[in-house]
Amino acid sequence: MNKGWQGNFFEDFDLGQQIACPTPRTVTSGDVSAYIALTGDRTARFCGPSGLLHPLVTFHVVFGQTVRHISFNARANLGYAGIRWQTPGRLGDTLSIDIEVVGLKENSNGKTGVVWVHNIARNQDGEVVLSFFRWVMVRKRGAEPTRWATESVVPEMPAQVAASDLVVSAESMPTQAQSGGRFAFEDYAAGERVLHYDGMGVNDSDHMSFTKLFQNSARVHFDRILTDGSPLVYGGVPISLGYALALNGFENRLGIAAINAGSHTNPLRGGDTVFAFTDVIECVDLPGTPAGALRLRMVCTKNLNVADESDPSAFEIQTPDPNRPGRSRYHSAVILDLDYWELMPKRASLR
Amino acid sequence: MNKGWQGNFFEDFDLGQQIACPTPRTVTSGDVSAYIALTGDRTARFCGPSGLLHPLVTFHVVFGQTVRHISFNARANLGYAGIRWQTPGRLGDTLSIDIEVVGLKENSNGKTGVVWVHNIARNQDGEVVLSFFRWVMVRKRGAEPTRWATESVVPEMPAQVAASDLVVSAESMPTQAQSGGRFAFEDYAAGERVLHYDGMGVNDSDHMSFTKLFQNSARVHFDRILTDGSPLVYGGVPISLGYALALNGFENRLGIAAINAGSHTNPLRGGDTVFAFTDVIECVDLPGTPAGALRLRMVCTKNLNVADESDPSAFEIQTPDPNRPGRSRYHSAVILDLDYWELMPKRASLR
Amino acid sequence: MNKGWQGNFFEDFDLGQQIACPTPRTVTSGDVSAYIALTGDRTARFCGPSGLLHPLVTFHVVFGQTVRHISFNARANLGYAGIRWQTPGRLGDTLSIDIEVVGLKENSNGKTGVVWVHNIARNQDGEVVLSFFRWVMVRKRGAEPTRWATESVVPEMPAQVAASDLVVSAESMPTQAQSGGRFAFEDYAAGERVLHYDGMGVNDSDHMSFTKLFQNSARVHFDRILTDGSPLVYGGVPISLGYALALNGFENRLGIAAINAGSHTNPLRGGDTVFAFTDVIECVDLPGTPAGALRLRMVCTKNLNVADESDPSAFEIQTPDPNRPGRSRYHSAVILDLDYWELMPKRASLR
Repeated sequence: MNKGWQGNFFEDFDLGQQIACPTPRTVTSGDVSAYIALTGDRTARFCGPSGLLHPLVTFHVVFGQTVRHISFNARANLGYAGIRWQTPGRLGDTLSIDIEVVGLKENSNGKTGVVWVHNIARNQDGEVVLSFFRWVMVRKRGAEPTRWATESVVPEMPAQVAASDLVVSAESMPTQAQSGGRFAFEDYAAGERVLHYDGMGVNDSDHMSFTKLFQNSARVHFDRILTDGSPLVYGGVPISLGYALALNGFENRLGIAAINAGSHTNPLRGGDTVFAFTDVIECVDLPGTPAGALRLRMVCTKNLNVADESDPSAFEIQTPDPNRPGRSRYHSAVILDLDYWELMPKRASLR
Repeated sequence: MNKGWQGNFFEDFDLGQQIACPTPRTVTSGDVSAYIALTGDRTARFCGPSGLLHPLVTFHVVFGQTVRHISFNARANLGYAGIRWQTPGRLGDTLSIDIEVVGLKENSNGKTGVVWVHNIARNQDGEVVLSFFRWVMVRKRGAEPTRWATESVVPEMPAQVAASDLVVSAESMPTQAQSGGRFAFEDYAAGERVLHYDGMGVNDSDHMSFTKLFQNSARVHFDRILTDGSPLVYGGVPISLGYALALNGFENRLGIAAINAGSHTNPLRGGDTVFAFTDVIECVDLPGTPAGALRLRMVCTKNLNVADESDPSAFEIQTPDPNRPGRSRYHSAVILDLDYWELMPKRASLR
Repeated sequence: MNKGWQGNFFEDFDLGQQIACPTPRTVTSGDVSAYIALTGDRTARFCGPSGLLHPLVTFHVVFGQTVRHISFNARANLGYAGIRWQTPGRLGDTLSIDIEVVGLKENSNGKTGVVWVHNIARNQDGEVVLSFFRWVMVRKRGAEPTRWATESVVPEMPAQVAASDLVVSAESMPTQAQSGGRFAFEDYAAGERVLHYDGMGVNDSDHMSFTKLFQNSARVHFDRILTDGSPLVYGGVPISLGYALALNGFENRLGIAAINAGSHTNPLRGGDTVFAFTDVIECVDLPGTPAGALRLRMVCTKNLNVADESDPSAFEIQTPDPNRPGRSRYHSAVILDLDYWELMPKRASLR
């Protein structure tokens, strides 16, 4: 037997199975600097002396840890849901993640199956920093049908994180002078579209460095032979680049608090330029806290700046054609459609 | 109104106006490592345990903060003057910068104006770490003439920083064993040309990472769509690469103390290789300190190593043709002409 | 005389000569983050809170320091031997390296000579962290023969580091949950081949950043003009990329303890993808320690994944043709053939 790890196949998973993921990572100021050098993120709360980790740094650190066990043999990353940040991550934290298999369904082709997992990331004190669901289409090792071909268990995924479940910390609130921001929670309204204007180029070297920084070992992001010369960009890169661009218009933000859902709708590759705009879906006051919650739909495009269109508000993210299935309905320039909760200070809390 | 920030236009500035720039940044050892990974700088004083920040790290951190308010809509970065480092920056400092508008002049075309600003960067204790003047050609929002079309205020810019205004710290002086250097202040003479020999390749990924590291958000450095596929390298990159190359021949240097003037004379792009040589303009003893001041003219070229010319001392930085205007007089390979003060230990202070 | 350093020539070396290399470097968590971002290395022991430096970080830091004096004018890096890690490097250590010339031989062409050096790297307390031999072919400054043309001193290089000389620290041993590893020392057997499966793309920007991070100033790695547009990748890059890939199958490893020999057999350039497999040469128990020593032969290839061959075990690293000399015997895809000692926990020590 060859000792090299080739990942888990569908047959290796069982309902209720628990997996502790290697490798626990101590997050340092070096990681934060690398994150800024790779994204240009300027969110005030995570640039100063607070020691609070950018929520997306926490996310990428632990997400990368799940690849070895879950998605090494993935045919497709089908989705994620219920991503919720809890205890804030801090510089010096050692983060690791545990997985529980909560659903299994063999596909009718007999070659793949879908695995649903619940992921819980903790710090060195055992506090939960982040939890989420994810489901992935995984290759089977063999042709023999599994019990999940006929006895599939398909868990219901949360359609969204409830605003009341968001965790707000009043620590290290930015001042307006620090953020440069003019808008408070009360200034946003459901239905408005915020254009972010700027674009960010992606290069093979920087997207690979991003993915290596977070120790995500999925080979499709690195191997030019496997990918006919054009490695696929890790889906976390457009999330982080889009979020960095989205500071423009949400300068006072306290940090992403939850992700309800996300679709990676077209591939992103080195040489592309990423743009973003955000539609405000819902504004929910969080009583007894200094913030309100904005439910936002961030849309990232490649090589097309919607802000440059004659009527950016008319840009159609998806074609209304009901005969086109799923992702094919998306505009060919749209690479990411992310539904998330942002925390925004209320006017009374802004100095 | 769209909430996305589109930068200040000429009409948004007023004489005496003061602007606190976001985002204050806590500078960490991670930033220092990223700076070394992007430049290869080996100046001994900033590689050891001293905790002193490389003066150019301090510079880039605070310069990047000015972009949002000053140069986002810049047509051209016309110049800078009187850049003077003061209280040394240290690891862990939180740096921010304030701007005061000190001059305004609308151009005769009615489409642009020139804004002169004085910038003061401070640490978390309010100590001034760096100050400088800068002037930028900014687009107007509308066609309506401003009062600065007829009542322009054009401040006089300092032609140079006086040697007596340079700040010398005797802290963490390098030994010759640490620097590898053979030359002390007394060994340099006005008129000599120091060749640095080495070249440094620039790639899209690393110049964008450099610019992101310092949170400079000027889109021309990142957006391939805006720039027809070839983003322009941030002017700070050749300053830092040239300075890193210039260690060769100035190994004992204590760090750049002031910039008198600088011209970015030809564009630099990914794929180019940067070379540098330095002309010694003036040597000024700084009595009562362990150092003397060298006024240096560092010239960076692209894709041409002047050291490889048959007579490097004969290389003409500018054509003597008086009929050619301004920057067009420069040799087409010259990308940067920088006039600065370097501090060099005196023989008696070198161990 | 031009003050720019042009490196030592063969005539500048003398037997017994000692050289202290600039620039001592304080290694920080920023350097570690940059190393991970550039390699993707996930060795558990060096990702957590231990503060232990990855042995290859220590190596690259001090190796880069030797370039200015030894290999700046190198025609060829002929070899290294007896690389042995001793006192473990730690975050915050200030590392520097001293060189002693132990052999000299002028080549019969009269244009070059071979210099053998013994290198000893120490931390701020003077403890030896690493020592090694290296020999380099260096250009002569002039045509005049040196005494080393007729009185050459050719030292014998150690064929390997003895297993009994390996330094084992029981500090911060990883658990199996932390490493994800299934195999202990006892599970490995001489003669087995471990395939690592994954590939890692190399880009100009990241290999140059790697080389700059470690302040290696050899111009052939950076200068597109000198290299006709295609800079050569620093040999330390495939060592580190291969080692990062080789985690797959050696997950519980404690870290490379010695390098017996290494050959860089074909050039590596930006755009290539690196793959690796490892042959187990020898397994030696280290009594009284929690580990055994595995003597491993790591072979890195470019743009060819041996794991994808129909019979990976039949892949011939070298052609058996005895009429082909030295490096030309290697398969054209093989870029590195590294003979090293790895420390692997014994079963009884694995939690």
